[in-house]
Amino acid sequence: MTAETSGTTSTTEQNRGGLEGVVAATTVLSKIEGTTGKLIYRGYNIHDLARSTSFEEIAYLLWYGKLPTKMELVDLKVQMLEERTLPTEVLQVLNDLPSTIAPMDALRTAVSAWGAMSVEGKPGIDQAIALTVRFPVFLAAFHRLRNGLEPLESHPELDYAANYLYLLSGQIPKEEHVKALNAYLVLLADHGMNASTFTARVVASTESDIASAVVAAVGALKGPLHGGAPSKVQDMLEAIGTQDRAEGWLRDALARGERLMGFGHRVYKTEDPRAEELRELARLADPQAFALARRVEELALALLQEQKPGRHLYTNVEFYSAVLLASVGLPGDLFTPTFAASRVAGWTAHILEQINNNRLIRPEAEYTGPTEMHFVPLGER
Amino acid sequence: MTAETSGTTSTTEQNRGGLEGVVAATTVLSKIEGTTGKLIYRGYNIHDLARSTSFEEIAYLLWYGKLPTKMELVDLKVQMLEERTLPTEVLQVLNDLPSTIAPMDALRTAVSAWGAMSVEGKPGIDQAIALTVRFPVFLAAFHRLRNGLEPLESHPELDYAANYLYLLSGQIPKEEHVKALNAYLVLLADHGMNASTFTARVVASTESDIASAVVAAVGALKGPLHGGAPSKVQDMLEAIGTQDRAEGWLRDALARGERLMGFGHRVYKTEDPRAEELRELARLADPQAFALARRVEELALALLQEQKPGRHLYTNVEFYSAVLLASVGLPGDLFTPTFAASRVAGWTAHILEQINNNRLIRPEAEYTGPTEMHFVPLGER
Repeated sequence: MTAETSGTTSTTEQNRGGLEGVVAATTVLSKIEGTTGKLIYRGYNIHDLARSTSFEEIAYLLWYGKLPTKMELVDLKVQMLEERTLPTEVLQVLNDLPSTIAPMDALRTAVSAWGAMSVEGKPGIDQAIALTVRFPVFLAAFHRLRNGLEPLESHPELDYAANYLYLLSGQIPKEEHVKALNAYLVLLADHGMNASTFTARVVASTESDIASAVVAAVGALKGPLHGGAPSKVQDMLEAIGTQDRAEGWLRDALARGERLMGFGHRVYKTEDPRAEELRELARLADPQAFALARRVEELALALLQEQKPGRHLYTNVEFYSAVLLASVGLPGDLFTPTFAASRVAGWTAHILEQINNNRLIRPEAEYTGPTEMHFVPLGER
Repeated sequence: MTAETSGTTSTTEQNRGGLEGVVAATTVLSKIEGTTGKLIYRGYNIHDLARSTSFEEIAYLLWYGKLPTKMELVDLKVQMLEERTLPTEVLQVLNDLPSTIAPMDALRTAVSAWGAMSVEGKPGIDQAIALTVRFPVFLAAFHRLRNGLEPLESHPELDYAANYLYLLSGQIPKEEHVKALNAYLVLLADHGMNASTFTARVVASTESDIASAVVAAVGALKGPLHGGAPSKVQDMLEAIGTQDRAEGWLRDALARGERLMGFGHRVYKTEDPRAEELRELARLADPQAFALARRVEELALALLQEQKPGRHLYTNVEFYSAVLLASVGLPGDLFTPTFAASRVAGWTAHILEQINNNRLIRPEAEYTGPTEMHFVPLGER
């Protein structure tokens, strides 16, 4: 008996799961049109939002249902400023853990510890704000600790995106980096009923607390089939190295049957509208890194069209997310956690939407095992 | 603008969620027949299992697909003995958190911290074992710490149920308590596609790790609509106090429109087969406490039949879970965590089943918000 072989005998049936096409909830938060490549948040086109709003405005839009006036935005920023602290207990928890753990695991544990101390009662917007603004704080604290540096206090004059970069490096970030990261955070903040958002809604539907739901979502986003793979795009670009090596590298990878990272999406059957925005932002943030990425993208699309003509594979959000996040100075293992620092706005908005009109999410399973096994007591086995 | 009022304006549509009747996966682990009140694990009737097996045998059955021989059970117990330790880092994390936090939050955070350090690669049975046996260890450590006591080392001669009671109290537990708790752990170990199990499968379907999936499940079980309410049954029994006060108390509660805790279930339309077993175990574990509970049950069923004749409300698993867990000496706020210490066997078995034949679980949302909002930049709002 070995764990592996015995484990794999447990299911030989065809799993018909996936819930593809099943409507699990109604939402007013975001809409994806996969065939036309359109994404809207509460009625607003993602292109307008990516070019002209701050992450704070988008969080406000998702939580409150409208874009804030100048005064409402000031109020929100004041509240965020007060909340974006690192409680001693959470710092201790991060300090207790080995510095080699995955940042997503550090984030999951820090949010769980914070929630244990800080969250009570039915999820509300105040909790959503308190939780969201701590994502960059927890991530940057972990990142500095693992590099032997002291965590920093948030900078009172910097907004969400800029403060995150400051907390990581201790430097006031460049304007083009702030602009690029802010737009990234806007673009990734919500995306319909994706697996982590759905996870958060399932947990919230039990009337559990907001931290339990968000902790669950962090764990789901960690999975490579969901949010856990953008650093592999960067790995690919680094392996390619220079533009002249790109075609040979990509052809070799395809010949070995490997999947090219950053292309194709379960929902979009055309270019992901977020990829279009991220491409332009990456161009501005680091023109040199962009040139290689753009060349690889063009070649990859041409090769995929040539070798998999029926598949209609387009550049997805991961490709230029990786290029953009690398260009603002983030290490690869902070890409998915930074995704979380954006999506937490959407998760919390979905949690509030779920519990506002709640019904326990409890699907069924079809049992396909034996039904009448004769029980033999241990002594006779 | 207040958080509460603005938050509640976001959804006025009828949420058609809940996924009731939607098959989210096939499973060979457990089958519930709601109309006949039948529960089976991998083909074995729950009544046979509750009366004649140990929790270890049930965990083996769920993970490996068959009841163990005597030698296989010895092997499993040896492996469990080696794993049921409290790593220093997790002890430190528990020590860092305020002693007043909810045990479910302590458990969620401890499992997250442990997973961060200990889990790598695709979920497997060895990980399931390592994780399951630490649930009682983490819970008892937290419970002793909050009472100003040192956590204890697991007792090498005690099995899962007995060791849990020992870790909590430092005493070798009474045989009837071990028997009752063991049967409780057997009875609660799996139950189809309940909300926490479903949560674990959604997280696992992203190809995230086993700890992320289990942490998510703990958060879902915490919700009062799922696992988070058994202590309320005990609160009710304590409020009633004596048999002669029962009828008046129950009639008053119903007259005030209150829900009687421990009756009714979304799936069972007859008596839950687990309630039947738990009733007999509770009778043996503490005859005096049982007498009151039994009287309250009989009166409650009669009053519900009289006042809500069409509803067919039966005693559910929470009612005698509470009575049984109290009778073996557990405080009310450890009832749901102890439920978790049983269900983790089912969660991990479902995670293994999910990833063995995986497809990302990603349902859809129906967007019911506005589609064409005219964007106005902040300066003009």
